[in-house]
Amino acid sequence: MNSATHQTAVVGVSGYAGAELARLLLHHPKLRGCAPVFFGRLKEEGEKHAASIPLTDMHPQLADSNGSASLAVEAFHWKTLRDRGIDVVFLATPHEQSRVWVPQLLEHGVRVIDLSGAWRLDDGQNRAIYQLEDADPKTANAIQQHAVYGLPELHRKEIASAQLVANPGCYATSIILALAPLLRAKLVDLDHGIICDAKSGVSGAGKTPTAKTHFMHAADNLSAYSVFSHRHTGELLEQLGLDADDIIFTPHLLPIPRGIFSTMYLKLREPMEPEAIDVCYRKFYADSAMVRWFGLKLPEIQYCVRTNYCDLGFALAKDKQRLILVACLDNLLKGAAGQAVQNMNLLFGWPEQEGLA
Amino acid sequence: MNSATHQTAVVGVSGYAGAELARLLLHHPKLRGCAPVFFGRLKEEGEKHAASIPLTDMHPQLADSNGSASLAVEAFHWKTLRDRGIDVVFLATPHEQSRVWVPQLLEHGVRVIDLSGAWRLDDGQNRAIYQLEDADPKTANAIQQHAVYGLPELHRKEIASAQLVANPGCYATSIILALAPLLRAKLVDLDHGIICDAKSGVSGAGKTPTAKTHFMHAADNLSAYSVFSHRHTGELLEQLGLDADDIIFTPHLLPIPRGIFSTMYLKLREPMEPEAIDVCYRKFYADSAMVRWFGLKLPEIQYCVRTNYCDLGFALAKDKQRLILVACLDNLLKGAAGQAVQNMNLLFGWPEQEGLA
Amino acid sequence: MNSATHQTAVVGVSGYAGAELARLLLHHPKLRGCAPVFFGRLKEEGEKHAASIPLTDMHPQLADSNGSASLAVEAFHWKTLRDRGIDVVFLATPHEQSRVWVPQLLEHGVRVIDLSGAWRLDDGQNRAIYQLEDADPKTANAIQQHAVYGLPELHRKEIASAQLVANPGCYATSIILALAPLLRAKLVDLDHGIICDAKSGVSGAGKTPTAKTHFMHAADNLSAYSVFSHRHTGELLEQLGLDADDIIFTPHLLPIPRGIFSTMYLKLREPMEPEAIDVCYRKFYADSAMVRWFGLKLPEIQYCVRTNYCDLGFALAKDKQRLILVACLDNLLKGAAGQAVQNMNLLFGWPEQEGLA
Amino acid sequence: MNSATHQTAVVGVSGYAGAELARLLLHHPKLRGCAPVFFGRLKEEGEKHAASIPLTDMHPQLADSNGSASLAVEAFHWKTLRDRGIDVVFLATPHEQSRVWVPQLLEHGVRVIDLSGAWRLDDGQNRAIYQLEDADPKTANAIQQHAVYGLPELHRKEIASAQLVANPGCYATSIILALAPLLRAKLVDLDHGIICDAKSGVSGAGKTPTAKTHFMHAADNLSAYSVFSHRHTGELLEQLGLDADDIIFTPHLLPIPRGIFSTMYLKLREPMEPEAIDVCYRKFYADSAMVRWFGLKLPEIQYCVRTNYCDLGFALAKDKQRLILVACLDNLLKGAAGQAVQNMNLLFGWPEQEGLA
Repeated sequence: MNSATHQTAVVGVSGYAGAELARLLLHHPKLRGCAPVFFGRLKEEGEKHAASIPLTDMHPQLADSNGSASLAVEAFHWKTLRDRGIDVVFLATPHEQSRVWVPQLLEHGVRVIDLSGAWRLDDGQNRAIYQLEDADPKTANAIQQHAVYGLPELHRKEIASAQLVANPGCYATSIILALAPLLRAKLVDLDHGIICDAKSGVSGAGKTPTAKTHFMHAADNLSAYSVFSHRHTGELLEQLGLDADDIIFTPHLLPIPRGIFSTMYLKLREPMEPEAIDVCYRKFYADSAMVRWFGLKLPEIQYCVRTNYCDLGFALAKDKQRLILVACLDNLLKGAAGQAVQNMNLLFGWPEQEGLA
Repeated sequence: MNSATHQTAVVGVSGYAGAELARLLLHHPKLRGCAPVFFGRLKEEGEKHAASIPLTDMHPQLADSNGSASLAVEAFHWKTLRDRGIDVVFLATPHEQSRVWVPQLLEHGVRVIDLSGAWRLDDGQNRAIYQLEDADPKTANAIQQHAVYGLPELHRKEIASAQLVANPGCYATSIILALAPLLRAKLVDLDHGIICDAKSGVSGAGKTPTAKTHFMHAADNLSAYSVFSHRHTGELLEQLGLDADDIIFTPHLLPIPRGIFSTMYLKLREPMEPEAIDVCYRKFYADSAMVRWFGLKLPEIQYCVRTNYCDLGFALAKDKQRLILVACLDNLLKGAAGQAVQNMNLLFGWPEQEGLA
Repeated sequence: MNSATHQTAVVGVSGYAGAELARLLLHHPKLRGCAPVFFGRLKEEGEKHAASIPLTDMHPQLADSNGSASLAVEAFHWKTLRDRGIDVVFLATPHEQSRVWVPQLLEHGVRVIDLSGAWRLDDGQNRAIYQLEDADPKTANAIQQHAVYGLPELHRKEIASAQLVANPGCYATSIILALAPLLRAKLVDLDHGIICDAKSGVSGAGKTPTAKTHFMHAADNLSAYSVFSHRHTGELLEQLGLDADDIIFTPHLLPIPRGIFSTMYLKLREPMEPEAIDVCYRKFYADSAMVRWFGLKLPEIQYCVRTNYCDLGFALAKDKQRLILVACLDNLLKGAAGQAVQNMNLLFGWPEQEGLA
Repeated sequence: MNSATHQTAVVGVSGYAGAELARLLLHHPKLRGCAPVFFGRLKEEGEKHAASIPLTDMHPQLADSNGSASLAVEAFHWKTLRDRGIDVVFLATPHEQSRVWVPQLLEHGVRVIDLSGAWRLDDGQNRAIYQLEDADPKTANAIQQHAVYGLPELHRKEIASAQLVANPGCYATSIILALAPLLRAKLVDLDHGIICDAKSGVSGAGKTPTAKTHFMHAADNLSAYSVFSHRHTGELLEQLGLDADDIIFTPHLLPIPRGIFSTMYLKLREPMEPEAIDVCYRKFYADSAMVRWFGLKLPEIQYCVRTNYCDLGFALAKDKQRLILVACLDNLLKGAAGQAVQNMNLLFGWPEQEGLA
């Protein structure tokens, strides 16, 4: 397949996930010679938005010797979309924006990988969770029905033929990948409940400066937030087939730029040997190049940061029933832009890890 | 009471807890005009140990205008102890050292506040946990029987008359203070089990340079350690009257210099209103100046760092049974040196928070 | 002197310097039993401003056992000022605000310690540098003439009798204290020029969230800013009696919460022995409790952070003429709130370091 | 050219530079299918050294889907060198080690890229600066004479045919690249002297845990070190053709993992327009893909970290003579492993930036 046949576009390149997307796409071996089209995201309060500025003015770290200096971040126009023959659009835009644009993009015959939370839930709870309003609820419902949750390790096949891929949340990715093998094998005592004590670096909170993301608040600190109410809970429940009472998910803000560390506590239905747990995970992820299984060695954030891997490990109590799972990933890569590229690879029939090693 | 009647000494002033002890004692209102005697700690592998050096050479931050510049860190001699009329000794020494010295100090008629883990457990498991060997096990047992666990909020009265105060571990302090009110009121469903997901700054790992405390490992990282095996577990169980199966305690290493954040998950035996929980804690800590109750607002590490407070708060699920408790403290203060001074205040009949505000 | 005769007020307690001021005043031995009155600062874009809120809601770290929980941050009213018998007001407000309020406060017979840059320059360049407009330029000029630059080490006597103390900038304090002894002794080769390469923690940039103070920009980074144009340059020149061409001052943003490190390079007019330099500084600061002279040992930020000390040290080239000076201080204490309290102590005839040890 | 003809080896893969080298070589397009041979470095005090361990046990972050899991770090044997047909060896070893091994490696007909400081100086001062002793001084002198200083931007041609490339120091790279264009054009007033105030992340201090690299010392701190005595000074002088009195170089330890920021101050012989300075640098680096010229926009550490670029920018005083230059680079890449790969590319006749974008 000639890579020149594929033209990509990123909307929302000014944010953290957008910048990572730009970096990945500019160096993607299959897209050589075919730079993505970059669009800014909508102006947020307090931000200025120039109509068209050099990409390397916005992100000086992207300047390199292969021509990135000549690239511009353009204001979004439908005409550009058609004229440039774009066939996949990455939306690194706020939820509300994605909810409005996806129907229009699909109508233009463009495939979409949406990094926001706007289209992740089958059960229609998106609207409630993200306070979305649809101009045309009927069309929105129809789109929702065909949207595919973009976790390749679980939905590889559906993603390949999707028109709309709803890229998962960063926390959700870490938790679903850690729990799915045991839950699908029905090895977990759900009456006991699952605890997910999750910790994320500051980039997860986005680029808009706030009191929470001020260096003076985030540095030398740890805080819990959105306790019993984080928006990713909906994804967890739906993807893992759980009820709200089965799981507690508590996010904490870590004083680091990037990385997620999720510590999960559960009880197995029956005592298991560590070897059996090992086998369960190795089998489940046998074909998943982007999951690294650490077994009884626990992963750390440093091992996965700036990679697209999700690292998994475990520890087992003496009773062989109480189990601790640890999942680590980079929230901007496997938790956002890297996973989006992984999804693009599937859309185009390329090896899943292409451009992500 | 004339403060001049009390002469204190710190053994192990070179470490982090020792330096904080020095700072607190040098500025303690009741000890004005009566500087503590400072002894170095035993040489650790790779460390050099000068016989007597100026305190402010060892800890330049302690230099101030009230005469600290003239103080020296001396090599320990029993003669010094007698000649200077020392009546309380703080041991900020390794467990093994404390185990050896405490019997000798008590024999000299000196009261001891030991910051190590050597004497914290009534049940004699210290030896196993800290791999201690006693030259005279019989005497050691007798001493252990009379040692008081130095958590003022639980053992105020016994501390006041103790000869040996075993200052609690930093993690243990945060967890015991968070759980004691509910457990003593028998409000917790123990069959369900309690999860303590705890996070600590790097100073908790001590001053000896290791691969774990190297900036390159600790910074921009999070890791779990001593999973299912941390030494503080013994204290937790004994002080809270729990069995090993009732609780899981998982420590994590935070990329910050100091501070502990413990997130605890439990199930109440019956649904409770938030107000009832509030009342339970307010009553329990009504006379405890060093516990700050945040109620439904969750504490953060920044609020308590460099103070002697333990901050507590909670969140309650919709079912009114699943409860999250958060405890924050400064591991070098309420988790070590500050708590030691609080214990000294009790020993001498001074207000508990004297010199700690 | 009975401390109860002095009532203080802080305007702008919501910012970083304001919070430090609150902490210092609440624990000041001479103000015991006489809590300061706290006023919020003016609303900034994007901030909400409640009329009156509990101090410990705004700054949870200030909650303590001595009654701070009952204190409120009030909206500013002139009536409150009179009714409460306030005799000194600390302004921790933006430059423009200070410029407007000082004339009114002085007219009310209140003494003012202004932490902003509005009144620091004798030569009237304040207006240009801080883009200030005076409703009544004549009165403003008269006030300016009697304003005292609040660096106690240089202007102890004038501060004691001042109505308006212009508290110095944080960078300026570190540089002036380092250079004044040599410059006043005319030992510096000014033709050669002086380089001040200064580095500051993020709190120096204020509490309003911006792209610069976002954790993602400040962490793991270093940047230079306001090169050849920083506002503190005016203070430096005036206080040190230098021309603009004599000195280059380059600020850098450090990835730490607080602390300033200024590295200064100069050439002595004649070769000097290190001992002679030592004597020069020891003499100059013989009566200055808040300057710590390190001699040939260089200070580090860690030694002075959370203290009111300015630490000074030096290194001398083999030619005995090229000299490096290092000055460290805590930008929120000796660089702001601590120095303001030091000035208050002078205003009231108390020992300079009272409440600052 | 068939890449399979080149077999590389890294000695000292356990350190930070070694790990980066491993990562770069494993993903180098021209070395596909020909993994490097990895040797550990010599045991340092307190380190354990296993004979042969999996590479991904030593550096879990290097585990990926392309077969790295099967690679081992071997103990060094001359036999391995011959059997595997290695034609270039990277030495990421201590200076003393490099000094001993280079003569033996060259004798075996292997080309060497040495990352230590052992062979950087033509004038024979290496021995004094690094306290080296040569078993055979005559041979050592002969080797030194033919060693090439591995800064591609200055010595591209000599490197291509070198047997021994002495990879430059990290600080030295930043300073030489910033100053060379102006110095070679004789535009600098040397009588005035040049100041280099340089700041480096902690990885520059190496992996061996020390009091300096302990998180508690490095975090939230800044310190100057090796003032007037840093070992890189020799390289600076020799490469820039300066005398010791012409330049002051002061290193500082930044509380970040990686990155160097050098702020340089100099006086031009004659006033120059910014445009003329711009032209000077653009011309000088016209063929240097790994230098990014920022002109009047100053670089920051964040832009270059984890890249092999050296970023340069400047600011000019109103007098158009006093000039500030800023150079930023990643000390482990352009300052060590990346530059070593750049040199390898030159040795093998590949494009300079191959595998470094």
